[in-house]
Amino acid sequence: MLSHAAYGKSRIRLVGVARHGDRHDVRDLTVAVRFEGEYDTSYTAGDNSDVLPTDTMKNTVYALASAGVDEPESFGLTLASHFLDRNPRLQCVRIDFTEHLWRHIAVGEREHGTSFMRRGPETRLASVQSDRQHTVAGAGIADLMILKTAHSAFAGFRRDEYTSLPETHDRLFATSLTATWRYLDTDVDFGASWRAVRSLLLETFATHHSESVQHTLYAMGEVVLANVDHVQDITLVMPNKHHLPVDLSRFALENRNEIFVATEEPHGLIEATLTR
Amino acid sequence: MLSHAAYGKSRIRLVGVARHGDRHDVRDLTVAVRFEGEYDTSYTAGDNSDVLPTDTMKNTVYALASAGVDEPESFGLTLASHFLDRNPRLQCVRIDFTEHLWRHIAVGEREHGTSFMRRGPETRLASVQSDRQHTVAGAGIADLMILKTAHSAFAGFRRDEYTSLPETHDRLFATSLTATWRYLDTDVDFGASWRAVRSLLLETFATHHSESVQHTLYAMGEVVLANVDHVQDITLVMPNKHHLPVDLSRFALENRNEIFVATEEPHGLIEATLTR
Amino acid sequence: MLSHAAYGKSRIRLVGVARHGDRHDVRDLTVAVRFEGEYDTSYTAGDNSDVLPTDTMKNTVYALASAGVDEPESFGLTLASHFLDRNPRLQCVRIDFTEHLWRHIAVGEREHGTSFMRRGPETRLASVQSDRQHTVAGAGIADLMILKTAHSAFAGFRRDEYTSLPETHDRLFATSLTATWRYLDTDVDFGASWRAVRSLLLETFATHHSESVQHTLYAMGEVVLANVDHVQDITLVMPNKHHLPVDLSRFALENRNEIFVATEEPHGLIEATLTR
Amino acid sequence: MLSHAAYGKSRIRLVGVARHGDRHDVRDLTVAVRFEGEYDTSYTAGDNSDVLPTDTMKNTVYALASAGVDEPESFGLTLASHFLDRNPRLQCVRIDFTEHLWRHIAVGEREHGTSFMRRGPETRLASVQSDRQHTVAGAGIADLMILKTAHSAFAGFRRDEYTSLPETHDRLFATSLTATWRYLDTDVDFGASWRAVRSLLLETFATHHSESVQHTLYAMGEVVLANVDHVQDITLVMPNKHHLPVDLSRFALENRNEIFVATEEPHGLIEATLTR
Repeated sequence: MLSHAAYGKSRIRLVGVARHGDRHDVRDLTVAVRFEGEYDTSYTAGDNSDVLPTDTMKNTVYALASAGVDEPESFGLTLASHFLDRNPRLQCVRIDFTEHLWRHIAVGEREHGTSFMRRGPETRLASVQSDRQHTVAGAGIADLMILKTAHSAFAGFRRDEYTSLPETHDRLFATSLTATWRYLDTDVDFGASWRAVRSLLLETFATHHSESVQHTLYAMGEVVLANVDHVQDITLVMPNKHHLPVDLSRFALENRNEIFVATEEPHGLIEATLTR
Repeated sequence: MLSHAAYGKSRIRLVGVARHGDRHDVRDLTVAVRFEGEYDTSYTAGDNSDVLPTDTMKNTVYALASAGVDEPESFGLTLASHFLDRNPRLQCVRIDFTEHLWRHIAVGEREHGTSFMRRGPETRLASVQSDRQHTVAGAGIADLMILKTAHSAFAGFRRDEYTSLPETHDRLFATSLTATWRYLDTDVDFGASWRAVRSLLLETFATHHSESVQHTLYAMGEVVLANVDHVQDITLVMPNKHHLPVDLSRFALENRNEIFVATEEPHGLIEATLTR
Repeated sequence: MLSHAAYGKSRIRLVGVARHGDRHDVRDLTVAVRFEGEYDTSYTAGDNSDVLPTDTMKNTVYALASAGVDEPESFGLTLASHFLDRNPRLQCVRIDFTEHLWRHIAVGEREHGTSFMRRGPETRLASVQSDRQHTVAGAGIADLMILKTAHSAFAGFRRDEYTSLPETHDRLFATSLTATWRYLDTDVDFGASWRAVRSLLLETFATHHSESVQHTLYAMGEVVLANVDHVQDITLVMPNKHHLPVDLSRFALENRNEIFVATEEPHGLIEATLTR
Repeated sequence: MLSHAAYGKSRIRLVGVARHGDRHDVRDLTVAVRFEGEYDTSYTAGDNSDVLPTDTMKNTVYALASAGVDEPESFGLTLASHFLDRNPRLQCVRIDFTEHLWRHIAVGEREHGTSFMRRGPETRLASVQSDRQHTVAGAGIADLMILKTAHSAFAGFRRDEYTSLPETHDRLFATSLTATWRYLDTDVDFGASWRAVRSLLLETFATHHSESVQHTLYAMGEVVLANVDHVQDITLVMPNKHHLPVDLSRFALENRNEIFVATEEPHGLIEATLTR
């Protein structure tokens, strides 16, 4: 009757400070740990004897972080191994990270070594999943808000009796991109790969002549698979955050495609996975 | 290369008012429509000729609502049929509803017929998914915040060197329940079934002698499958919103299990699916 | 140069459980403490010698709660006195409460004594402010979402060249009410008064023939001042959460004032204070 | 009985695109308009004859934006004059702006002219308030998240029986700064002043040897008043987003001030206004 079960700890907040003299680095992570395995009797009989408390998962994250936190994917591999080694009933462990990004504050021409400001709203994602046979590392970007004011059209689409949308060859195209990808193996320079994927996504979004959200989404995924060797597949989720031109003709004014209402709801939602 | 793709419209806000003389009823829905099908060339070539605009999906929701909105599952079946009939390249359509619940305001001993207040934070969920072969209706409850101040223990669990959690036989147990279930067929009294499941979930949570979140989650799912005929499976997601007893001994005071800190993060996260 | 300064602790989460045999009661409060006084040298010279840490404010809330938490206004009076007694440089202290409301879960015909569900989204507010000369207790309701589907008009308004709004004699009127009021003295049955004000606000909203949000807001405040003796003044803030009729005529369909789009932004914002 | 009243329109979303050949600029604003004046009969008698609809306020924002939106403060001055000129019963008008900031996407070494990414989470604030006698322009920054990993202490504070906080000479200091300031007159280069204040706030936060949040807050405000001529006063609000060192000694591990838990609640809240 129990066809699926998982348990774990979410939103473990970990800030690691690496102190190199006057220059510090910060890793600001929200971590989730998730166990699947032979834990059915905890559900069916209230038998906790094999259940590692989620509080212990949290403690383990902090304890293992004390050896230093480098790339989150690497730390995830360490955590996954640790949990698999010690919990025989654990069949599949998953570690998820959201990294909140900081940059050093500029003071005059120089970066201050120990003072930081958040850069965002985007966050970096990382994940490790292992079922003892296979271990897969993944990465991603969430909430990367991007906007094109040219080279974006939507025309030639199917119409029916409920279609009132006008065709447009010059619209605003805004989205809050979430992209996640998985690596073919775990022998990857995770930081360099993340930066490479991020740059390719931004540059392709910027330069693409878009016929639709779908069209640009695909182009963005394609360029990642073509240029970053270790990426096995990539999933892009792109809400179409509609910016509607304001009808000023009611006020005897002209809107030369310059004045828009930004809307939150409803929004289109386009998603796809591209696989090598 | 395109291994998965979907597109649609999210967060379509629809409020329907049924006017029966001095007594009105309100349906307040957030709707999402999602298409999967033979739309690959829209991604790969920017060819929109088969793409029904998401704006048309939105218009269709409002147009079909004008015939009256009863249970959201029934409305979803109507929408799914409509879209499948007219879009030959559509292979799988999904309609999701979040219903924001309102009750009539009481004036003295009576309910006022045309004035309402929200009841929540809980919302009602409903969904319909059809791939032309099979049509599955589902339902759910989100954000049902519940709390037990007795009959909740967590003891006898596995310990390792990072375990510091004390055993407890009398803890607070608070969660924000999200439960979703699917029906075996679509010939269901959706409103009555939803109310029945909701009552069973609440009553079981209230009366269960809990050895853990897992233990109570399972009991809640089990009673639904045992008592509501049409339910095929049910998934429960229960974050453990920890309430920590405050250590007052530092101040020469006693905490007789009465004073707690409610925490949002980190939280345990327990989930399972029970299938008939 | 320092023309105003305050410091304190916000979002202190306190859950108190009163255990009366098989019947428990829950007080779930978010508390804020705020000090104003002769603390300028902490700002100007980094001199902390008179600064009670905000961590101590938090500890004090928990310590004093161990004697039992009844109405939040009463607990606020206790806290305010405590802080004023011990901190000679404190000139004005303010304690704010948001109470998250719970009800007992019904099992069959009876309420279960130790299991609860949240009722909301509304919260109860309470406050105490004292400057050693005067102590003022206040109360309130936040996020009370209410809706009228009849007896709401908006017509006869001023027009200019940018006015496109049609007059309406039968619109939906939805708001998320925040009302706060202050008491003339502190010798009040705070629980009974809060319930009385809440009922009057709801009943007046329900039965009023509204010419505008302003008109109904005033009627709601007026009835409170007329009927609840201890209330000195009341402030109501009412966003006008617009519900727009959908134009279905484009689809050769009629909208008999039944199908609406609920919008979050932009919204009207109406506020006023009525004083005895 | 009506001791205070105001009405207006909030969350008007306006995105203006200035097109200079291949180089576009974006202004992304959320605007609020607020009227105070002789509108009492709209409250007391439901008389709307002098009430300009909030929908017209929204239309006016879009209509006047069609002449081009430069600095939000300047646009606010235009809006305020417009409303005061045409509404004789309007006594005090206030326009508030939140600007969502975008930067051009870099493609290789160059900025792309028509593609943008959000920079945030910080936003720019601007306001104009006029009561026909005096017109005051203001500005601000919200949600500027900043962090110091060195040169932050909190020691020598007042202790009582509920004080358990240890003194520290090397703590993490994180806040989400909101600063607002008012200008002495309206003949200001608003863009340049905003950038100057922002840089001074960041640099002072970075380089200050902090004895407390209060101490650094004051230093930040002081440097603005000393260096930016047109600023009349500045208000800083700084929640102390506590980062707590994790006690790893339970696990026979050492925490060399490197591993922290970031917390959201409770938080200290420090605020002050400095006036020239």
